[in-house]
Formats: sequence, structure tokens, C-alpha cells
Amino acid sequence: MTSSSSEFDLIAKYFAPLAASPNAFGLKDDAALVPQRAGHDIVVTTDTVVAGVDFFEDDPPDTIAKKALRVNLSDLAAKGAEPAAYLLSLSLPRVDEAWLEAFARGLRDDQVRYGVTLLGGDMSGTPGPLAVAVTAFGHVPSGRMIRRNGARAGDRVYVTGTIGDSGGGLAAREGPLFERYRVPEPPVTLGPKLIGIASAAIDVSDGLIADLGHIAQTSGVRMVVEADRVPRSEALRALWGDDVVRAVTAGDDYQVAFTSSAPDAPATCIGRVEKGAGVVLLDAQGREIAVPVKGFTHF
Amino acid sequence: MTSSSSEFDLIAKYFAPLAASPNAFGLKDDAALVPQRAGHDIVVTTDTVVAGVDFFEDDPPDTIAKKALRVNLSDLAAKGAEPAAYLLSLSLPRVDEAWLEAFARGLRDDQVRYGVTLLGGDMSGTPGPLAVAVTAFGHVPSGRMIRRNGARAGDRVYVTGTIGDSGGGLAAREGPLFERYRVPEPPVTLGPKLIGIASAAIDVSDGLIADLGHIAQTSGVRMVVEADRVPRSEALRALWGDDVVRAVTAGDDYQVAFTSSAPDAPATCIGRVEKGAGVVLLDAQGREIAVPVKGFTHF
Repeated sequence: MTSSSSEFDLIAKYFAPLAASPNAFGLKDDAALVPQRAGHDIVVTTDTVVAGVDFFEDDPPDTIAKKALRVNLSDLAAKGAEPAAYLLSLSLPRVDEAWLEAFARGLRDDQVRYGVTLLGGDMSGTPGPLAVAVTAFGHVPSGRMIRRNGARAGDRVYVTGTIGDSGGGLAAREGPLFERYRVPEPPVTLGPKLIGIASAAIDVSDGLIADLGHIAQTSGVRMVVEADRVPRSEALRALWGDDVVRAVTAGDDYQVAFTSSAPDAPATCIGRVEKGAGVVLLDAQGREIAVPVKGFTHF
Repeated sequence: MTSSSSEFDLIAKYFAPLAASPNAFGLKDDAALVPQRAGHDIVVTTDTVVAGVDFFEDDPPDTIAKKALRVNLSDLAAKGAEPAAYLLSLSLPRVDEAWLEAFARGLRDDQVRYGVTLLGGDMSGTPGPLAVAVTAFGHVPSGRMIRRNGARAGDRVYVTGTIGDSGGGLAAREGPLFERYRVPEPPVTLGPKLIGIASAAIDVSDGLIADLGHIAQTSGVRMVVEADRVPRSEALRALWGDDVVRAVTAGDDYQVAFTSSAPDAPATCIGRVEKGAGVVLLDAQGREIAVPVKGFTHF
């Protein structure tokens, strides 16, 4: 930065163009208005991505921006919410205008793609690692947010997309899977269509088995997953072969796992809900596959 | 932390009791619902406090919690909003359960005091300094949020409370002023009463002159402040004597500065709005007092 570039100048230059909604007041006020929609609840979620934990510090800035936004959009999708707007809190170890420009470009691309707009936020220097916190807002018809606690014995278990790609990409550090690690593809348009179909849902961030475990615990049920039915990409099979355990514990997928009584929900059926507790993974012969407990803590 | 204490256990133990609203789903879901109020807009603001910048790392944890919340409540007050709920994002260099318990106690005290409730958030480990990000929500009658851009020539300039106490406390590092630095007292109940009275408002965080400068710039006016009328506490006068420049540039006050055409608004009148640009500070003889530019950047 030049010594004349203040936080205010940087915000005006790179972020105000992203805040076209009148609710954002051009980022020139202390606060913004959360967009409301008649007959709808406002769903809010917040997630932070940190350099060295959720991305590599030298990742392209536009991919860091997209990941920060999309890990929140996957939460909205899992709740059946249509995304509307977001707040951005940027903690920067240093100011590099070329970096900021590319970062803002990543946000702009995703704003067009997902129909969201920047509402506000803050930017500050930090002696720690680069961190990007996003708080995202979406709308669901009143009282219809898809919860974690609605899974019932007899439901089927579904998951969108393919599982393990991001984990494979993190291991390979190159190729299309690494791009998937850097820029997840949450099922944003599918999310709202799951209302009335999904009895419970969660986004897959800690790992498929761990996240299904959250549904199982909150709903008071047992989840049975058939390993052969877990959708995996050709690229992942080329990298990890038949190691399904690695895929279902890798995390960072940002797909949506849900339960439904429907036999033909719009995703891949991978198992069933039973009475009981916990999650079990079965092989083709119906034998339980041991899954190491992981993905449960951020410390 | 014991090795068995996961993020989820800590949230359930210390933070779920703060999330009594049904909108928070007991912190057991991926998202929460922002509380709506008929005939009202939802004002949102977000601010982060960082150890070594906004507080001392060894400050009592309950005071850190209160400061993190209150620096956001002062923004809501300046916008005329009645606070309703907040999100909390906690970045911890280490986990210390006694610290977390005291931190949560501070939040609980302020929840009772201000009528707000925890909606959700996240907690993560960080190699950097302790940081506490709060996103606060409040309600204003639809279309009535007090903006920065409404000041008009002929208005008077007002400020709540006393100015410079927090800065004095930071310099003294002891006594009641230091307590004010640690735990600001924003005019939360006054805020909503300013609707229909204030033509523009801002919370005083960068320093009185700097923040009035934001109103001046956004409104396209000039602010004239009379040094003798700036309210200063006895404790601050004992510490800094008649050094008003230091008080009006110190920052961290978290009071509300506003403009109004009313001759008797519920705060201290410190000056007037004129045509022109910028902020000037005048002595008792009407001569301009030089004010060093500060408080304009976080880098």
C-alpha cells in the first residue's frame, strides 16, 4: 500500500463496487440493513477461513475469496435457504493492492453467479495469519428452515455431488481436485428445492461420516451408510482407489447430506436411517467398516 | 483443555446457555434465524476486537466479552436501533476453560442488561492473537435508520456522555478511567429515542473529531466544535487538565455524536453545522485549534 491508502480508501476502491444494494448504503455508514422478504424467515450463518488451516496463504486471492463465501453458501443450501447477501470481515497481515483487487474480483464473480451482494463488514491489520470471515444471509419460507433434528427411522440418506474430492486435492496439491479444494461447488440452487423433501440436512464440512453423526445425534437416530453407494469422482478413484474411508472422513466437501422419506430425492441415495445412535459404514457384504473418529474438533 | 473437550463440548457448556431464543436452535444447527419485527428494518453491524489492539490480552475475560459486544451496540445506538441479538466468532490462541467461563459470564451479564441474545457463531484455534468478532442485529422502524449523511447547515452538533475517558484510561492503565477503556458504556437506551431528532449520527470510536469528520464528509457539510463545550469527566480533567485536543482525538469512547435541528436534544450541544467541509475545533475566543489528523486508519 502507499502510505496514503487508508482502510477507508481501500474499502471505497475495492469493496464499495460490490455493495450495490441500497441496503448497504455504499459501505458509507456504520451499519447496513438485512434484506427481508415477505413470508420468509432470514437464515444467518457465519464461517471463517484461515490461512494455513482452510487454504494456503499463496493460493490465488480470487480462490480464497470464493472459498470464504462458498463455505457459507453451503450452510444456507443445507438449510433450504436462497442466498441474498453477506458481510465480510477481513484480517490482513499486510496490505497488497494487487492481492485485494484479485480478491475483490473473486467476490464479484461469485456475486453474479449466486445472486448475492455485499452488505458491509470490516477490514483490519493482524499480526496473525490472513483470515476471512463471512456472515451470509438467506431466505426460507417462514417456519420451513431444514433442521438437523428431523431425521426419522425409515428415511433414506442422500448426498449431493461427489465426496472426497477436496480431501484428495489437498493430498495431491495439484490438478482438478486441488481446484475443488480451493473452490468448492456447493449445491446452492438445489438447497431451496429440498424444502418439503429433506427431513434433516447438514453441509459436509467436517467429513461425511462426522457430519451425518451430527444429524444422528441431534435427531436421535442411527445412520447406516453403504460404502459402495458413496459417490466418488473418477479423479478421486484414480488417486485413492477404493479407499472409501479416506473419502468419507476427508472433509471440506461443502456438499449437502440429507435425509428424506422420498425414494427419489434429487441426490445420491447412500443409505438409510434406523432407530439407535451413531453412524455405521457397511461394505458390500453388509459388514461394518471401521471409521476413525475425526473431524470433530477445530483445536 | 482436557483432550476430550472438543469445540462442540465447549460450545454446549459455555455458550448454549446464552442462546435461549428459539431462533438460535440451541446452537445445535448450522444456522440461526435473524429475529424480525413487524414494521421494522433489521440493522446489522460487525466489529472485531483484537488482543494488543483493542484490549490487553490479560484483561479480565468478562471485560473482553463486554467490550466486544458493546462496541457493536454503540453502532446500533447511533443508527437508532434497539438491539436484539448477536453472533459471536471467537479466535482463541489456546483453550482455558476458566477463561471461557468468565468470558461467557460477561456476555450473560450484558445479555440481561441490554436485552440481547446469542444467535450463533463459531470458535476456532488461531496462531495469532485472541480476537472476538461480534455481529449485532437491531430493529428500527422501517425506513427510519439514522444515517451519516443527513446533517444540514444550521443543525447543532451533540454528543452523549463524556469524551476522552477511555483514552485517558488507556494512558493511565489504572483506576476508573481504565475500567471505562475496558468496558465502554454506549448510550443503548438513548439510541432509539434519537429517531426523529437526529439528522445524522455516528458512534465515537476513531475519536470525536475523526468521527464527526465522517459525518461532515458523507453529509457534505462543515462541523464547528467549541472546545469548551466538549463534555469531559472530572477524572479526565484531573489526568489531562485542559488538553481537549487529546480528548477529542483519543477514540474508543463508544458514545454517540449526532446532529439535530432541535435546540434541546438529549445530549450535550458542542457546536454547529455550517456549509463547507471538514471539522474545526474552536477555543473560547473563536480561534481555531490545530488538531492532528489521526484515527483514520487501522493499518
